[in-house]
Amino acid sequence: MTVRPHLLLTPGPTPLHPAAREALGGESLGHMDPEVFALNGEIQADLRTLYGAPDGTFTALLAGTGSLGMEAGFANLAEPGDEVLIGVNGSFGARMAEMAARHGAHVRTVTAAPGEPLSPAAFADALAGGDVRLVAVVHGETSTGVLNPLPEIAEAVRGSGALLSVDAVTTAGMQPFDMAGLGADYVYTGSQKCLSAPPGVAPIAVSGRALARHAARRTPTALWYADFAGLRDYWEGHSYHHTVPVGLHFALHAALRAALDEGLPQRQVRAAEVGRGVLAALEPLGFSPFVPDPAQRLPTVLALRLPPGLDDAATRAALRARSVSVAGGMGPTAGQIWRLGLMGEGARPALYHRFLTELEAVLGVRGAASRFEQVLGTHA
Amino acid sequence: MTVRPHLLLTPGPTPLHPAAREALGGESLGHMDPEVFALNGEIQADLRTLYGAPDGTFTALLAGTGSLGMEAGFANLAEPGDEVLIGVNGSFGARMAEMAARHGAHVRTVTAAPGEPLSPAAFADALAGGDVRLVAVVHGETSTGVLNPLPEIAEAVRGSGALLSVDAVTTAGMQPFDMAGLGADYVYTGSQKCLSAPPGVAPIAVSGRALARHAARRTPTALWYADFAGLRDYWEGHSYHHTVPVGLHFALHAALRAALDEGLPQRQVRAAEVGRGVLAALEPLGFSPFVPDPAQRLPTVLALRLPPGLDDAATRAALRARSVSVAGGMGPTAGQIWRLGLMGEGARPALYHRFLTELEAVLGVRGAASRFEQVLGTHA
Repeated sequence: MTVRPHLLLTPGPTPLHPAAREALGGESLGHMDPEVFALNGEIQADLRTLYGAPDGTFTALLAGTGSLGMEAGFANLAEPGDEVLIGVNGSFGARMAEMAARHGAHVRTVTAAPGEPLSPAAFADALAGGDVRLVAVVHGETSTGVLNPLPEIAEAVRGSGALLSVDAVTTAGMQPFDMAGLGADYVYTGSQKCLSAPPGVAPIAVSGRALARHAARRTPTALWYADFAGLRDYWEGHSYHHTVPVGLHFALHAALRAALDEGLPQRQVRAAEVGRGVLAALEPLGFSPFVPDPAQRLPTVLALRLPPGLDDAATRAALRARSVSVAGGMGPTAGQIWRLGLMGEGARPALYHRFLTELEAVLGVRGAASRFEQVLGTHA
Repeated sequence: MTVRPHLLLTPGPTPLHPAAREALGGESLGHMDPEVFALNGEIQADLRTLYGAPDGTFTALLAGTGSLGMEAGFANLAEPGDEVLIGVNGSFGARMAEMAARHGAHVRTVTAAPGEPLSPAAFADALAGGDVRLVAVVHGETSTGVLNPLPEIAEAVRGSGALLSVDAVTTAGMQPFDMAGLGADYVYTGSQKCLSAPPGVAPIAVSGRALARHAARRTPTALWYADFAGLRDYWEGHSYHHTVPVGLHFALHAALRAALDEGLPQRQVRAAEVGRGVLAALEPLGFSPFVPDPAQRLPTVLALRLPPGLDDAATRAALRARSVSVAGGMGPTAGQIWRLGLMGEGARPALYHRFLTELEAVLGVRGAASRFEQVLGTHA
């Protein structure tokens, strides 16, 4: 089966970083080899930088994708019967609520409509009325392109006694993340999002406070595979827990180092510039932001309402026939929006220029690519 | 970080198959792309062949390593309070017992000493005295090199009403596996063992009977990430569950196809021949099989007692300095045995010839490599 070069402009996986692709070749070491422990140590240090983690934070890769990162938080940091408060304003918030309930938590939710951000005041209200042990929130809701007001939510949580778990799947790696300042206790992402490494590992960070909570559990973590204690045996104690995907560690290491070398603020600017150009290119065609307020808009996943009359499935299929993939809506927004990934190697002017050129051909219109060039200037 | 070419003769990961290495390059598709669903369909069909699965069996890759395969069985097929009977004669049997208990099962065990196989009669006795819902057994106990008598254990389980879960991590792919004939309900392995694909995915097979048991659960599977229902949504219904590691799917597909093209009986012969040669080479140096009875010996992991006076750590370190890795014992056998992997691309005469040559240099002896050549004939 041969694979035609394909332009992935979905909200992940993003196009592989060249350094990650090259590093995949180095796969002739085992999970217990000293070179791998040295590599892991570098990954752990770089993850502390990625997340802005305070001293005492444990960082590691889970041997699974971002959803395992999500699940590991509930499995390790909530015990059966614990009250867990979850923000739900899209598919991934809803997924968190389902996972927490499966792990036996007593789940309460703070909700907002698709396309709207969660309200920090609603978290404060909910926290006042109970004995919440863990609060979980999605920083960027991939399904709708909403950026939740994480600093304000974190402020509402601080001092409540609850731990704070943050899904940083579409944000960490494409902007500075301040785990220390937020007082976040658990943060995770997926390798294939803002870092443009291959999918299959989930970078996590666990605060010292969360490690203490885990150590004081009354019952063992049901999820042996991602038990924080077992992970620390391997990542800190260098003793066997389970086999890790060494090739993916090498690739993630290379991609993460490239991201930090470029600089997280610079990457944030890059995503914002490309996003601004795409919006300027597409608004005259009748596309409009699904999230009206720019301050509530996720800079890394641009969700656009389709122009009246545009056939979602047929247009995306025509683009796909030209080897360009963009994503549609999920759940209630299916058929109504497109979601364009502006993460990692996806947030490159040349790639979006190509997308716009192909879209012009598919729709039989002109001008989109040149409007993009005007905004991006010499970058495009 | 540059990686020196390294010879992995441990019980996994095994040296990467060249076709798997090449396939890793094809990583520019997403988990929802039609080419990936087509690839997945071919993987599913080849897994049915690999496991000798009857009609109605669901096959898939878990997005994790073999331990996640192990855990998924208990998470999906046992409910809290269910009686689960587990064979324990080494580290991986013990791991199963721990996982099952964490998922709330009432665990009973059938045990044997390290280096000895489990007794089918003991399973029959244990099944007679209770209401066992699930029996779990390791086919080849990697930690000691014991081949458990799976056909006889399966016979003891058949008709009891219990499901049978088989850990085929060190066997499937290096010998024909007869899931249909055994009446096994859940089988799993790791990609990096007998198939010599990169670590990070776990090929599983779930019988129709096990799927029915899962569908009739009173409580949802705690482990959302590997819930059989969610996996079927993706693998059969082509709807989103979680991101899968597409690059590893391509690599596993290539390695699995290569294994089936070579032929499972032929691979069994290859492993046996190399193992016979290694034993003939090393016995005159004072190494002896940890499992005395050849019928109880795992053909894919040769466990050898060290000669009196041989320094385990120093000798393996000296080999490692020459870029050759073999594994020591685990738990009670640490320092007493070596474990040599004879799986997939590890079971190649040229590689073991090199190991023996390096070992001669390290120990200051001669003759091992030539004895190996004599047994292997033109193969070495």
